[in-house]
Amino acid sequence: MRTVFQAELQQIGEDLVEISELVRTALARASESLFEADVELAEEVISDDARIDLRQTQLDERAIDLLALQAPVASDLRRIVAALRMSASLERMGDLARHLSQTARLRYPEPVIPEPLLATFREMSELDLRIVEAVTRLLTTQDLADADAIHTAKARLNEMHASVFGSVAEGGWSPETTVDIALVSRYLERFGDHGVAVARKVAYLVTGEWDAGRDLPSAP
Amino acid sequence: MRTVFQAELQQIGEDLVEISELVRTALARASESLFEADVELAEEVISDDARIDLRQTQLDERAIDLLALQAPVASDLRRIVAALRMSASLERMGDLARHLSQTARLRYPEPVIPEPLLATFREMSELDLRIVEAVTRLLTTQDLADADAIHTAKARLNEMHASVFGSVAEGGWSPETTVDIALVSRYLERFGDHGVAVARKVAYLVTGEWDAGRDLPSAP
Repeated sequence: MRTVFQAELQQIGEDLVEISELVRTALARASESLFEADVELAEEVISDDARIDLRQTQLDERAIDLLALQAPVASDLRRIVAALRMSASLERMGDLARHLSQTARLRYPEPVIPEPLLATFREMSELDLRIVEAVTRLLTTQDLADADAIHTAKARLNEMHASVFGSVAEGGWSPETTVDIALVSRYLERFGDHGVAVARKVAYLVTGEWDAGRDLPSAP
Repeated sequence: MRTVFQAELQQIGEDLVEISELVRTALARASESLFEADVELAEEVISDDARIDLRQTQLDERAIDLLALQAPVASDLRRIVAALRMSASLERMGDLARHLSQTARLRYPEPVIPEPLLATFREMSELDLRIVEAVTRLLTTQDLADADAIHTAKARLNEMHASVFGSVAEGGWSPETTVDIALVSRYLERFGDHGVAVARKVAYLVTGEWDAGRDLPSAP
């Protein structure tokens, strides 16, 4: 039985990796739909989000079945509970990618982000891509160097999120654009925050210690 | 052992009720700090959020211990897994109340919400209070009438969230105020959304059916 159990546990780990790859693709495509005002691509991202949700539901069912059938204890139990939480974070990251595309669709054919802020938002999106790619590697290898990379990228993302709010305060944008800038910046910041949440859970499983000191102050 | 188990399971249920009460208090006080520009109250809400986080951590540890020691199956297992998820939703609702107070603190001594929109935001806050109060009752009684009340309140909250964006688009507010209005409206909408998530989990435990049809389209 232990062998079947370990295979099931490994499958859950592989499912998490696959979901994180789907989320990475969703973010890359959502960003392109947003920055290029590509409404067809936006529609695809929006409808594809259901696949991420389905994969999360399947992973959760697998994890609950494993809890029921195998009654794992100690570290195996914590791995399964952590997997349930990580799948919830990844699913939420998928939702945030969808929100980017929904914003693109709402404003189409107008672009959402005004040209002077495009470079800033592209960099924020790049940071999120770096975060989700590091999450995928971290889930694959459990190498905590990737956790450090995630925290570094998130610190930079927080700075940029604050700088966006600073530049918005200077004004000059229409009310719709001001709202869009604020919300898109928030979506990108939240995306990274969920990536940090996944990284902290992996680090906890690897080290057995909850490193609260690594907590970055989350943006309001 | 089963008696100890049932007592532990009941304790987890009571913990959820208590956390939902703390969240209700947090939202009421956060709303007052926001609408009355009361920075001392805002500071209290912000520091009290750590208590909600602590209660969530304690509940989660209790739930994981119960999984490890008692190896529950079937409906008991699902109740414990659902409790872990509901505690995460409640903790997030506490965070959103904190964000309201952080916004109040950021703009102090200026009010965050301009006078013409105050009635709208008060009503949104009232809807959220109604939602979290219904969540508390639902967790206490498992009476699904409260789930219906939550869905009704959330539908109204979604309408108001959309109307806020409509009135913001008409302009006339400073860029800071426009951003604040957008984010505060979003925080209030998200708060209600997490309340709906808790309600759906309780309904699932009671009926054994996941009522996806009750899903409201979530705001982007």
